[in-house]
Amino acid sequence: MAIKAAVVGYGNIGRFAVEAVAAAADMELVGIVRRKGSNNVGDIPVVTSIEELGEVDVALVCVPSRLVPTQVRKLLALGINTVDSFDIHGEIRRLRSELGPIARRHDAVAVIAAGWDPGADSVIRSILQFMAPGGITYTNFGPGMSMGHTVAVKAIAGVKDAVSLTIPLGTGVHRRMVYVELEDGADFDEVKGAIQQDPYFIHDETHVFPVDDVRQLVDMGHGVVIERKGVAGKTHNQLFRWEMRITNPALTAQIMVAAARAAMRQESGCYTLIELPPVDFLPGEREEWIEALV
Amino acid sequence: MAIKAAVVGYGNIGRFAVEAVAAAADMELVGIVRRKGSNNVGDIPVVTSIEELGEVDVALVCVPSRLVPTQVRKLLALGINTVDSFDIHGEIRRLRSELGPIARRHDAVAVIAAGWDPGADSVIRSILQFMAPGGITYTNFGPGMSMGHTVAVKAIAGVKDAVSLTIPLGTGVHRRMVYVELEDGADFDEVKGAIQQDPYFIHDETHVFPVDDVRQLVDMGHGVVIERKGVAGKTHNQLFRWEMRITNPALTAQIMVAAARAAMRQESGCYTLIELPPVDFLPGEREEWIEALV
Repeated sequence: MAIKAAVVGYGNIGRFAVEAVAAAADMELVGIVRRKGSNNVGDIPVVTSIEELGEVDVALVCVPSRLVPTQVRKLLALGINTVDSFDIHGEIRRLRSELGPIARRHDAVAVIAAGWDPGADSVIRSILQFMAPGGITYTNFGPGMSMGHTVAVKAIAGVKDAVSLTIPLGTGVHRRMVYVELEDGADFDEVKGAIQQDPYFIHDETHVFPVDDVRQLVDMGHGVVIERKGVAGKTHNQLFRWEMRITNPALTAQIMVAAARAAMRQESGCYTLIELPPVDFLPGEREEWIEALV
Repeated sequence: MAIKAAVVGYGNIGRFAVEAVAAAADMELVGIVRRKGSNNVGDIPVVTSIEELGEVDVALVCVPSRLVPTQVRKLLALGINTVDSFDIHGEIRRLRSELGPIARRHDAVAVIAAGWDPGADSVIRSILQFMAPGGITYTNFGPGMSMGHTVAVKAIAGVKDAVSLTIPLGTGVHRRMVYVELEDGADFDEVKGAIQQDPYFIHDETHVFPVDDVRQLVDMGHGVVIERKGVAGKTHNQLFRWEMRITNPALTAQIMVAAARAAMRQESGCYTLIELPPVDFLPGEREEWIEALV
């Protein structure tokens, strides 16, 4: 029996989620839920309310992070399992505490923060922590576009469009490369100063450049390097490095699909990725993965 | 309440396991079990039978892989949880099937193949598999000593002592660098030919060198690079790389200690690392690790 999945939200990640569900042999895409209904996508029904889709096992919640909690609460109350890529690191613990009782009350499972960071990178940081309990882990993001920083720049007066790239300098220090298209009559030096004083940028080395057309700079490729040098038992100088060069929304969507599969295998409750067995994210029989991967 | 751990076997890994348990604030080392009793190690009792140690929550089984199944069966029958670093890849699935019912019958937990490969690397391969379901994962070992290959060389006539180094050439292809100390009167070319025809070496590029003193070449440092280039959803060219440069027995022992902690948190049964939540390997409170690592 295929897992009946719905995609909630049809922005950047939602579009890739539709592809990732279609590519998963053990899943069936029953429909897409959007705020404003519209034409079907190929032969996939598009609706404004998930209840129009009939039976749904799991919803991939692809709305912006700040809208995730409301959406997930509603879906769990319907007894539908959820997966999201909520990415506000400082609020994940609180969100988990809030959603856990709701999920258990409705016999449902919520897997939260199931993107690549937070998400897969969190699993890597956990493994590094138990392999070398003494030491420091550095997460170095980029090179790639930062959505949060880009939105912050777009909010500044005089900015018509913008893109902010994150460049890793090592040991968790980042450079910000900001490309702005100015509104008519805006003063570049004023805009540049406002960006460099913005809370998103004030602590980082930030370079600002005027460009004619921001869209020509957009590339959804992103990267991360996680490094740890630490102590295993009493033995120092254990070196670890995890590196990815990936297409941001494609990987997020793929991890959400894997987490949706894992959601179907848990007892009711709310989970982050570090609380779930890695094998549960894989389709098919556990014993065969043990044979192939262990 | 500290977890009461015993170390069974006091060879190379056993010695590092004693250090790793001592470094774990949530564990208490109640004793070491050896075939032949001997003097205590510092103030740690050394016994020939684990029953002499009183209450033991979990045993770190640090005997050679071929002796692991017998030891683990005996310990599980006493209701003692076990962790081992059994490393014969082709036999792990069968061992798990055999030990699971024994563990459940005695309300105990066995975590098997809990080293770095199989073990932590198996978890990495699982994560790569669900992040990019289409593609190929290559595990490249080295540079470092291969115990299995070294033992194979030592069994060849005319070899007094030897060490075999594994050199990664990429895409899972390895070169073998073999250093041999000859018995008096042995012919180097004959020994070299016998090594190159041995099943352990016949499929790999193998170089053999005579040396005066093999012990001067021994360095327990080892490395691994796991690479995958694959497809997330329908998006190609997703690139992943995991690299470690570690002290072989120290990392094995540290992972066994973390797995011993995880064993205390599972329902009775037999598990490989890919079947356990990463957070269960970490000491203390789950919520604090979610805050720190997710």
